[in-house]
Amino acid sequence: MAAQDKAVDATVRDDGVRRIPPRQAGWLGRLQDLIENATTQKIIAVLIALNAVTLGLETSERAMAAAGEVLRVLDRTLLLIFTAEILAKLLIYRTRIHKDPWNVFDILVIGIAWMPATGNLSVLRALRILRVLRLISAVPSMRRVVTALLHAIPGMGSIVALLALVYYVFSVMATKLFGPAFPEWFGTIGASAYSLFQIMTLESWSMGIVRPVMEIFPYAWAFFVPFILVTSFTVLNLFIGIIVDAMQSQHQAEAEEAAVAEDKARAADNAQILEELRALRREVADLKRDSGLSP
Amino acid sequence: MAAQDKAVDATVRDDGVRRIPPRQAGWLGRLQDLIENATTQKIIAVLIALNAVTLGLETSERAMAAAGEVLRVLDRTLLLIFTAEILAKLLIYRTRIHKDPWNVFDILVIGIAWMPATGNLSVLRALRILRVLRLISAVPSMRRVVTALLHAIPGMGSIVALLALVYYVFSVMATKLFGPAFPEWFGTIGASAYSLFQIMTLESWSMGIVRPVMEIFPYAWAFFVPFILVTSFTVLNLFIGIIVDAMQSQHQAEAEEAAVAEDKARAADNAQILEELRALRREVADLKRDSGLSP
Amino acid sequence: MAAQDKAVDATVRDDGVRRIPPRQAGWLGRLQDLIENATTQKIIAVLIALNAVTLGLETSERAMAAAGEVLRVLDRTLLLIFTAEILAKLLIYRTRIHKDPWNVFDILVIGIAWMPATGNLSVLRALRILRVLRLISAVPSMRRVVTALLHAIPGMGSIVALLALVYYVFSVMATKLFGPAFPEWFGTIGASAYSLFQIMTLESWSMGIVRPVMEIFPYAWAFFVPFILVTSFTVLNLFIGIIVDAMQSQHQAEAEEAAVAEDKARAADNAQILEELRALRREVADLKRDSGLSP
Amino acid sequence: MAAQDKAVDATVRDDGVRRIPPRQAGWLGRLQDLIENATTQKIIAVLIALNAVTLGLETSERAMAAAGEVLRVLDRTLLLIFTAEILAKLLIYRTRIHKDPWNVFDILVIGIAWMPATGNLSVLRALRILRVLRLISAVPSMRRVVTALLHAIPGMGSIVALLALVYYVFSVMATKLFGPAFPEWFGTIGASAYSLFQIMTLESWSMGIVRPVMEIFPYAWAFFVPFILVTSFTVLNLFIGIIVDAMQSQHQAEAEEAAVAEDKARAADNAQILEELRALRREVADLKRDSGLSP
Repeated sequence: MAAQDKAVDATVRDDGVRRIPPRQAGWLGRLQDLIENATTQKIIAVLIALNAVTLGLETSERAMAAAGEVLRVLDRTLLLIFTAEILAKLLIYRTRIHKDPWNVFDILVIGIAWMPATGNLSVLRALRILRVLRLISAVPSMRRVVTALLHAIPGMGSIVALLALVYYVFSVMATKLFGPAFPEWFGTIGASAYSLFQIMTLESWSMGIVRPVMEIFPYAWAFFVPFILVTSFTVLNLFIGIIVDAMQSQHQAEAEEAAVAEDKARAADNAQILEELRALRREVADLKRDSGLSP
Repeated sequence: MAAQDKAVDATVRDDGVRRIPPRQAGWLGRLQDLIENATTQKIIAVLIALNAVTLGLETSERAMAAAGEVLRVLDRTLLLIFTAEILAKLLIYRTRIHKDPWNVFDILVIGIAWMPATGNLSVLRALRILRVLRLISAVPSMRRVVTALLHAIPGMGSIVALLALVYYVFSVMATKLFGPAFPEWFGTIGASAYSLFQIMTLESWSMGIVRPVMEIFPYAWAFFVPFILVTSFTVLNLFIGIIVDAMQSQHQAEAEEAAVAEDKARAADNAQILEELRALRREVADLKRDSGLSP
Repeated sequence: MAAQDKAVDATVRDDGVRRIPPRQAGWLGRLQDLIENATTQKIIAVLIALNAVTLGLETSERAMAAAGEVLRVLDRTLLLIFTAEILAKLLIYRTRIHKDPWNVFDILVIGIAWMPATGNLSVLRALRILRVLRLISAVPSMRRVVTALLHAIPGMGSIVALLALVYYVFSVMATKLFGPAFPEWFGTIGASAYSLFQIMTLESWSMGIVRPVMEIFPYAWAFFVPFILVTSFTVLNLFIGIIVDAMQSQHQAEAEEAAVAEDKARAADNAQILEELRALRREVADLKRDSGLSP
Repeated sequence: MAAQDKAVDATVRDDGVRRIPPRQAGWLGRLQDLIENATTQKIIAVLIALNAVTLGLETSERAMAAAGEVLRVLDRTLLLIFTAEILAKLLIYRTRIHKDPWNVFDILVIGIAWMPATGNLSVLRALRILRVLRLISAVPSMRRVVTALLHAIPGMGSIVALLALVYYVFSVMATKLFGPAFPEWFGTIGASAYSLFQIMTLESWSMGIVRPVMEIFPYAWAFFVPFILVTSFTVLNLFIGIIVDAMQSQHQAEAEEAAVAEDKARAADNAQILEELRALRREVADLKRDSGLSP
């Protein structure tokens, strides 16, 4: 994750502009200029937003009855434009295209749209709306927010690992303890993990799950209440970690600024004292010279 | 929002007093003095509170049976007073009245009370209680709190936009995936957006929605659990942003104060050293003069 | 609240010891010494804890069958001891007894135990357990925590007032809009306020309340979703306020400490420079004297 | 808890390495070297992870049918290895083994696996998965996270005691007030405590518990709503305490660093001024010597 993050860093700066150095001066360079200049990027962003609307309208039966053909043609045209853009990028960067993770994301969502959406793969039709997430990579302010969010993730590593371990242990225990009696909730490790996630979110944990379980296992609360307390406490500490991190970076910036201002103020004071001292030394030197001359 | 915020700033200062410069010295000026002096504003606040009580009592059948006529007359009288106040303000400020957003709010809630509350518009009768929110604009300490709350909003812009985008994408996907099987929950984009909002608040998300959906689509958890994690994480970061912002402004104030105190202390030290140095220079100068005289 | 808080401050210091100056040197003074010395207070705390156990056991049918008489006698004896303590305090402080709010609290909970618990007042029997809360006033570390919690309340004033206003307005609106169709949930302002509190805590807000309401009023979401957003945002800001306050007092203490350390360090530096300067002045003075002598 | 924490501190440093000084140079010393060197620890960690997988697979009927015998043999072998490790440690440290709480934990989870899992003790079979938690003591980064989490606990002491007291008082009251009418929820103190925990987590508190109770006791809301407000406020303050603590230690580290940097900068300035002053004194001394010589 940290590596991917650095890749994001390399192309997305704080000013939110994606900077990939031009590759060559030939027609590929001109193609790159065409694809990556600000105007083209803005047009692409508008087209993505338009595509978001058409894909949304496709879910409405009334809209499909009234203008289904238009929507389909529009969607196809937009897809062709996006495909042309991504093919141009492939041509420009070739094997280096994966260096910008947003490009990989773009290729994936465009690729999904070209897959045959039949049989078991009909779910891919629904995934076509993911294309709209390209707005994030197309609009600088969005990209900045997502980059900031992704930055919070690496610091969560070891506490998330701990949470996963606790989950696994409790899931296996729940499966062994309550699986035979409540196969729907705790029949397999997967079912237990899902039920425990539900319990961690506190949704119907008592009336829906634990009270029925307690009718057969009266001491089941001794399993679930500690689980809630442990996971809540861990998740809370995860969040506190993120807050403290956010604060810290905030503060460091402020503290450095304050330190610079302080240093300047002290340097000015210091300069004043030193100037005074040097003037004094000059006078003493004069005096010395004079007293050397005078006798 | 930022613009409106500035407008709030322009009229509502930290001391919570609305300051609109007087317009002319004629009878309009005297009218303005009458309407906007502190005593009138206090009377208006008391009348709004009284109106809150009468509007509350109107919902009680027992109160209406006992004193329905009195309540109706009181309500009408108060409405006339508020209308007179707002008309006076319209006369005073004319086209500039919209510069104070609280005035716009006042005109809206008074306007609602005069609309014919019949047929499809009977909901307007219920909106008449919004008039009580004028207490916010009439009581300085309340106005300060609301202004502070509104100040937190502009900074939330891009993360709210991201959240809206994620919502839209998930709503369209949910409509396509689960709409045909669960028309009540995911039949249209609107229904999906509402259901996803419910899921984000974690209300009955599992027992009420996802478990029934999983009976038909066993992998539905792979849609809903990531949705919960992504939106929770984003909302959490939204909140952290607000906390860090609040802290930062707090700190800046403190840090500036500390810096001023520090500067003063250092300046005092500095003055002491410089004074000593100057005394020394005077002595050296004396010495020089003496040694010049002595030979 | 601020006034009561000050009263707490006056008697409960950071060291958690209640300090009430002795009143006179006669037998009342000796009584006060007896009642308020640390050993007596510890014995009282142990007796309260014992009373907590007996009151708890009274709820168990098995314990009552086995040792009901013992428990009743114990409870009565303990009540007599606590009553004697409070009467002694009344004798000592008379009209000034209300100055320590913990005393008022003690009188109330002891008074409840002496009320006839019959008929409509049988609920008072259940309130007798409140006596156990006297542990808070008897154990210094508990008293400190409660004092700290109470300190957070005054700062919440205006935002709680705003929340109350929003609640009132939404309650009246809900009563007018949904009362006739859903009398159980929104029949009166009280019922609406309770239902809206439930909705604010997000408990069954959608599946339990809003979805059924939406079956009759399809646009009911336009009332409830903004209510959830507004109250969540307000409560969030209330919490942030408390956090920032807690941080601020924390920081101020730290910053003052740091400033003191810094001042000391600078003062030491300053002293060194000044000492050096004074030595120099002495030498210059010597020189002057010498040069005055030498000619 | 604080004592245990110190014990953790003593063996687990910030670098996450468990440091127990070698005991003797004989064969026990060599055994210790064998058991506690980094490679052995890594092998043990891998074996624990492998055991986690086998214990997980044991819950799957399909896996048991396909390779049940292999899994059982693997599990038994791994258990023997872990037992050998813990016996070696017992041999090495003898009575001092309890000084590292992780060792106590290891002995417990290994002990559970050797208990006869029959009759009433069949629940011990399910507890065997706890063995996987040894990964925490075997992986340094996990151990650090858990140590950090445990460090947050001692500071929570008095507020948790307050919460327990409030819980006890409300449980006894609920049992007395609602026990006879709702034996399932409030029949005993234990049942009441569980129901109040459910209510504190806001799960189905209104639709599931309080609304049914209010049908018999219309004023029950006056018991439950304050309970929710009081416990939420207390828990919130508990969390704020943890956040402020985390911040404080963060800040102290930063502030100390800043203070050191500042001290260095000031010391450098100071050195410059003092050097200048000493040069001046030397010149004055020269002058004095000269003026002493010159006459």
